[in-house]
Amino acid sequence: MRNDERKNTELRKVNITRDYIKHAEGSVLIEVGDTKVICTATIEDRVPPFMRGEGKGWVTAEYSMIPRATHTRNPRESTKGKVSGRTMEISRLIGRALRSVVDLELLGERTIWVDCDVIQADGGTRTASITGAFVAMVDACNKLIREEQLEKMPIQSFIAATSVGVIDDQTMLDLNYEEDSQAKVDMNIVMTSEGKYVEIQGTGEESPFSEEELNQLLHLGKQGIMQLIEIQKETLGEIAGLIGK
Amino acid sequence: MRNDERKNTELRKVNITRDYIKHAEGSVLIEVGDTKVICTATIEDRVPPFMRGEGKGWVTAEYSMIPRATHTRNPRESTKGKVSGRTMEISRLIGRALRSVVDLELLGERTIWVDCDVIQADGGTRTASITGAFVAMVDACNKLIREEQLEKMPIQSFIAATSVGVIDDQTMLDLNYEEDSQAKVDMNIVMTSEGKYVEIQGTGEESPFSEEELNQLLHLGKQGIMQLIEIQKETLGEIAGLIGK
Amino acid sequence: MRNDERKNTELRKVNITRDYIKHAEGSVLIEVGDTKVICTATIEDRVPPFMRGEGKGWVTAEYSMIPRATHTRNPRESTKGKVSGRTMEISRLIGRALRSVVDLELLGERTIWVDCDVIQADGGTRTASITGAFVAMVDACNKLIREEQLEKMPIQSFIAATSVGVIDDQTMLDLNYEEDSQAKVDMNIVMTSEGKYVEIQGTGEESPFSEEELNQLLHLGKQGIMQLIEIQKETLGEIAGLIGK
Amino acid sequence: MRNDERKNTELRKVNITRDYIKHAEGSVLIEVGDTKVICTATIEDRVPPFMRGEGKGWVTAEYSMIPRATHTRNPRESTKGKVSGRTMEISRLIGRALRSVVDLELLGERTIWVDCDVIQADGGTRTASITGAFVAMVDACNKLIREEQLEKMPIQSFIAATSVGVIDDQTMLDLNYEEDSQAKVDMNIVMTSEGKYVEIQGTGEESPFSEEELNQLLHLGKQGIMQLIEIQKETLGEIAGLIGK
Amino acid sequence: MRNDERKNTELRKVNITRDYIKHAEGSVLIEVGDTKVICTATIEDRVPPFMRGEGKGWVTAEYSMIPRATHTRNPRESTKGKVSGRTMEISRLIGRALRSVVDLELLGERTIWVDCDVIQADGGTRTASITGAFVAMVDACNKLIREEQLEKMPIQSFIAATSVGVIDDQTMLDLNYEEDSQAKVDMNIVMTSEGKYVEIQGTGEESPFSEEELNQLLHLGKQGIMQLIEIQKETLGEIAGLIGK
Amino acid sequence: MRNDERKNTELRKVNITRDYIKHAEGSVLIEVGDTKVICTATIEDRVPPFMRGEGKGWVTAEYSMIPRATHTRNPRESTKGKVSGRTMEISRLIGRALRSVVDLELLGERTIWVDCDVIQADGGTRTASITGAFVAMVDACNKLIREEQLEKMPIQSFIAATSVGVIDDQTMLDLNYEEDSQAKVDMNIVMTSEGKYVEIQGTGEESPFSEEELNQLLHLGKQGIMQLIEIQKETLGEIAGLIGK
Repeated sequence: MRNDERKNTELRKVNITRDYIKHAEGSVLIEVGDTKVICTATIEDRVPPFMRGEGKGWVTAEYSMIPRATHTRNPRESTKGKVSGRTMEISRLIGRALRSVVDLELLGERTIWVDCDVIQADGGTRTASITGAFVAMVDACNKLIREEQLEKMPIQSFIAATSVGVIDDQTMLDLNYEEDSQAKVDMNIVMTSEGKYVEIQGTGEESPFSEEELNQLLHLGKQGIMQLIEIQKETLGEIAGLIGK
Repeated sequence: MRNDERKNTELRKVNITRDYIKHAEGSVLIEVGDTKVICTATIEDRVPPFMRGEGKGWVTAEYSMIPRATHTRNPRESTKGKVSGRTMEISRLIGRALRSVVDLELLGERTIWVDCDVIQADGGTRTASITGAFVAMVDACNKLIREEQLEKMPIQSFIAATSVGVIDDQTMLDLNYEEDSQAKVDMNIVMTSEGKYVEIQGTGEESPFSEEELNQLLHLGKQGIMQLIEIQKETLGEIAGLIGK
Repeated sequence: MRNDERKNTELRKVNITRDYIKHAEGSVLIEVGDTKVICTATIEDRVPPFMRGEGKGWVTAEYSMIPRATHTRNPRESTKGKVSGRTMEISRLIGRALRSVVDLELLGERTIWVDCDVIQADGGTRTASITGAFVAMVDACNKLIREEQLEKMPIQSFIAATSVGVIDDQTMLDLNYEEDSQAKVDMNIVMTSEGKYVEIQGTGEESPFSEEELNQLLHLGKQGIMQLIEIQKETLGEIAGLIGK
Repeated sequence: MRNDERKNTELRKVNITRDYIKHAEGSVLIEVGDTKVICTATIEDRVPPFMRGEGKGWVTAEYSMIPRATHTRNPRESTKGKVSGRTMEISRLIGRALRSVVDLELLGERTIWVDCDVIQADGGTRTASITGAFVAMVDACNKLIREEQLEKMPIQSFIAATSVGVIDDQTMLDLNYEEDSQAKVDMNIVMTSEGKYVEIQGTGEESPFSEEELNQLLHLGKQGIMQLIEIQKETLGEIAGLIGK
Repeated sequence: MRNDERKNTELRKVNITRDYIKHAEGSVLIEVGDTKVICTATIEDRVPPFMRGEGKGWVTAEYSMIPRATHTRNPRESTKGKVSGRTMEISRLIGRALRSVVDLELLGERTIWVDCDVIQADGGTRTASITGAFVAMVDACNKLIREEQLEKMPIQSFIAATSVGVIDDQTMLDLNYEEDSQAKVDMNIVMTSEGKYVEIQGTGEESPFSEEELNQLLHLGKQGIMQLIEIQKETLGEIAGLIGK
Repeated sequence: MRNDERKNTELRKVNITRDYIKHAEGSVLIEVGDTKVICTATIEDRVPPFMRGEGKGWVTAEYSMIPRATHTRNPRESTKGKVSGRTMEISRLIGRALRSVVDLELLGERTIWVDCDVIQADGGTRTASITGAFVAMVDACNKLIREEQLEKMPIQSFIAATSVGVIDDQTMLDLNYEEDSQAKVDMNIVMTSEGKYVEIQGTGEESPFSEEELNQLLHLGKQGIMQLIEIQKETLGEIAGLIGK
């Protein structure tokens, strides 16, 4: 039995609250167990300089944590004057993941800025960010459609993410912080509603893993992601039907 | 009538939710109208180098906004690699205000780190931060008492803050964002439960103000702050009784 | 009696030397007791990007101290790679204060850069900076008039600043460094020649202050500022007559 | 046929020159086709502050490129004043990979600093860095053994890395720059001589990939890595026999 | 005839005012024509970490200009967040020059911080800084002697600096700004009272120079420096006698 | 006899390998004894903003060392977030030296970016950089001629650099690291094939030097540079004939 009484194949309770921040074009609070992330999607009517004039859009993401999202206080990166490698790595991952399901030509010369601000962390903040930010991004695009700035939803598939890991020779889904600290193998998977991989990042720094373990982890991750996509669909209601049409 | 149908002497609706972030020693979500700030108080068992060995504690604060707390997206200060003058000014103000009601010798060689993260901004974020952070700080100190690390509450008075301003020759209490943009005079007042001033910061950049206007603003501010302190007392319940004893 | 034998209501000796730096459009050395600040005003024929095309000008200020302006050496902010919160706060204050008396439309699409470099500090450096920089700014504008780039003086009023404080329950005008270190209440006031407030910044971090004390401080500050404005007028001679006309 | 006339399952020509920089405890020039990286390993007799007193060692890596390693000149990160997300991500990957095969307790309170400086880039710089840095690290540890500072080689396994990708629906091993630019799926694999995974990082930003493609990529990667490890063994000669003993 | 009516072999008028800043252990205002630099010397009772425990002292210098020291305003290096190459180069030059005449063992474990702040620039700011800072450094050391912290003056020789250059095939001493802008060859010379070279920095970027020109420049520089050292001696009066004894 | 058995007037063995990095317009590896520097020249079809529209080109240089080029590891300047004074000083020197022999009008509105990356340091890295970078710059210009973008070689003279110094009262040519550490006087000389000085930088921080020593050093330097220019000519072969025509 896991420390929070889940089965190895069980996700934590997931809750997605839409329209969480009134100013943003799309915004959600996603809660995955005790992990809580505010995800906002901002539409900007231009693209970065290197893309201008190509008629295509862009999606970019930034991830951060408030100082006391964690057990002990983390100094602010703004105060330190630089962003850590971990933060940049996660920001880049979220951006790539979301970009993979957006038809950038349909989006037109616009940028979607996705901000994921973790207000409480209990493991899996990067995967919760992707799962939540997807919903905020759909809402922001839908706003463009409602305002007749876009004719068609530029988002092609659902996308969600979860973590899997190996603890004491058992493979487990959706690790919380305590589990994550004990895991010898830790893997993040990002997958579309078609069951295709967008990202796999697995690391066995403390203990390399075998092909068999890899296969179990991939299987477990897929199951979790399919459930997360169901939750996204329920949360989005009617709008879910616009995706990939 | 004001744009949100308040009277000139009326505060916005205020709500303070305690224990908002599970990891912090003290944490609240304060909502003042549509302004929402997460305030956490962290106890660290040491003081900055310049104070070591004096047997006294310290209180320091940092203020920030998530990028989409505002109407348009603000680039992150961590990404820009430096903290703006506005942010530093507000952080310093919050720190001074809270320090003014703490008996630093009673606190002992500990630092209280106060973090105020604005998740939605609609005017008055710095004053809401002070009012909310006070409650988080009380909870953090009370935790030290419950754990028998402190014998006595080191906080001497209640403290709260509000803004006042002059719009079209009328003095108004607790300006929201739209009002703040129109105000010719803008003043932030921080006051204790004894009715004493801790900070007055008034600026009439676009239109200098007379002594009479100043007196009206100070009067209005005091009324607002006394109501805010009542709300702090209700929120804190029994613990309120420990303050200043 | 105060440590420099002044009465509580007495300013330190003030001296303003015009044309102190030959390259600047306006420049003064202001001495307020042992506090010495070089203030220069530079005219730039453009405004910041966010203001272009509006036909209006801008006034901005930067404050700094040479490392040994103070009792012990302060490391340079250029070497540390960032500007402190205190420096930014003072720079912003000086800018706001000077802007408040300039008719930005009359100024046209120009920026007045004001630089206040403290070469010797003995308390009251920010208020001396405002008082001195005003004179440098007038000289710079007058140069534009003499060169027939401007028809009319865009400066509407005189403006000066001083500090007041409470030491051992006595209110005192124009604190020097030693007094400033002992003051329980410290207030900076910026006022126009019409007796209107442009800025009030009072802080009672170590000891909150009552309404009565506030009123005494405001009264004392006004007296000091009116004397400072007289000194500005004498210093400027004929040019003084152009202001507010 | 590939643009350099290789088969899809064929590595580029690999050459590892040991003792390339005379000052370093271990140093190699690794050439993988036209990709050339100088890898040095430096032994420092202490560990980072957070690890002191635990009797364990540490391995850390930094990756960089000279400005003209690439087709067009890249501005230096030192001149820009900050390290890019890409650079940090690669540095972290190299560090994790090398750490995974070092018994940190056998290493004792020492840090191995690994520096990978790309002098010519033609795709696969991060995987070449890992493969080459492994050899430099072995040489540095062997120097400690020869100097009788260590009794036993603290390195437990060989480790090497390669990239695989999908181009026009074909899976290919060891992508060069031109191939990398065309690949819809791009994966880096780090594996030990026991055939266990240390890292898998696959991304299908432009085109998500199926389980079948994933399996083909993993298979191809393993074949390549086993050949790279053979080259490491030949290069190291006798010293190879100390590893994992 | 030169633009300020000097002969080619003539220095500008030099004036050194001692005790210019009351807080510093040594401080001067040096005026060389219209170039004006405030030089302060601060004694700190410790040395940089890399020198601790060796019983030797250190001398270090920092150079800066106020923004409007020059014809047009230079943005502050503190605001830009980094120090320019030019500033660092000059700071290093001043430090090396002054160190060369100090017996660091006699100084003991102390650092002399020299700050040279240019308040008005008209060419030759780096050489004026060296000439003036020498006097400030002597005064600071003398203060240590007067306070019986040092038994003996640790300064071994006088040192001064000037610039020489080639303009229209004529060699000239002590270039002002206008001359400096026209010079094809520009050389700074630092020399002791014994006529020995401490630094020669000559550059003929726009026009390489011959051995003959070099010899003329060196000769001219020596003449100027010997006059500057006479001025230092007069300025220092009796204290001059302690140097090199 | 010197520590590497050279005569005092003898250069170390010099080797220049052209076309060392395939992407750059010009690139060499220069080896001067154990000092090894990769020099690349990049042509960019524009000039810095302050030069646009003048029809003239620009030459700029950046110098760096890989961390383990030296006896002990130097932290990367990119990681520290700022470039040291030493690095900037050397970069500026290399740029000035190379610029002095280029006819910027013949070059047209192009920038030549020169990068000098030291991969192994044993004294004299800045002078080796100049000597090597000259060859890379010639190759880059020659490429423009071959591609008919330039009609004529814009380089007017050969230029090379070496160091000279005084050790134990003996003047020596081309100091290696060990000698450089012992030298009381250290001088870098940059000279053209016409025997004219472009830069002289001599410092006698630990021991000022006499006119006689200076003359010996200059003489020795000239001899060394003339040999280096011969090596440049041999290395360049036919292309050498284009210079100064």
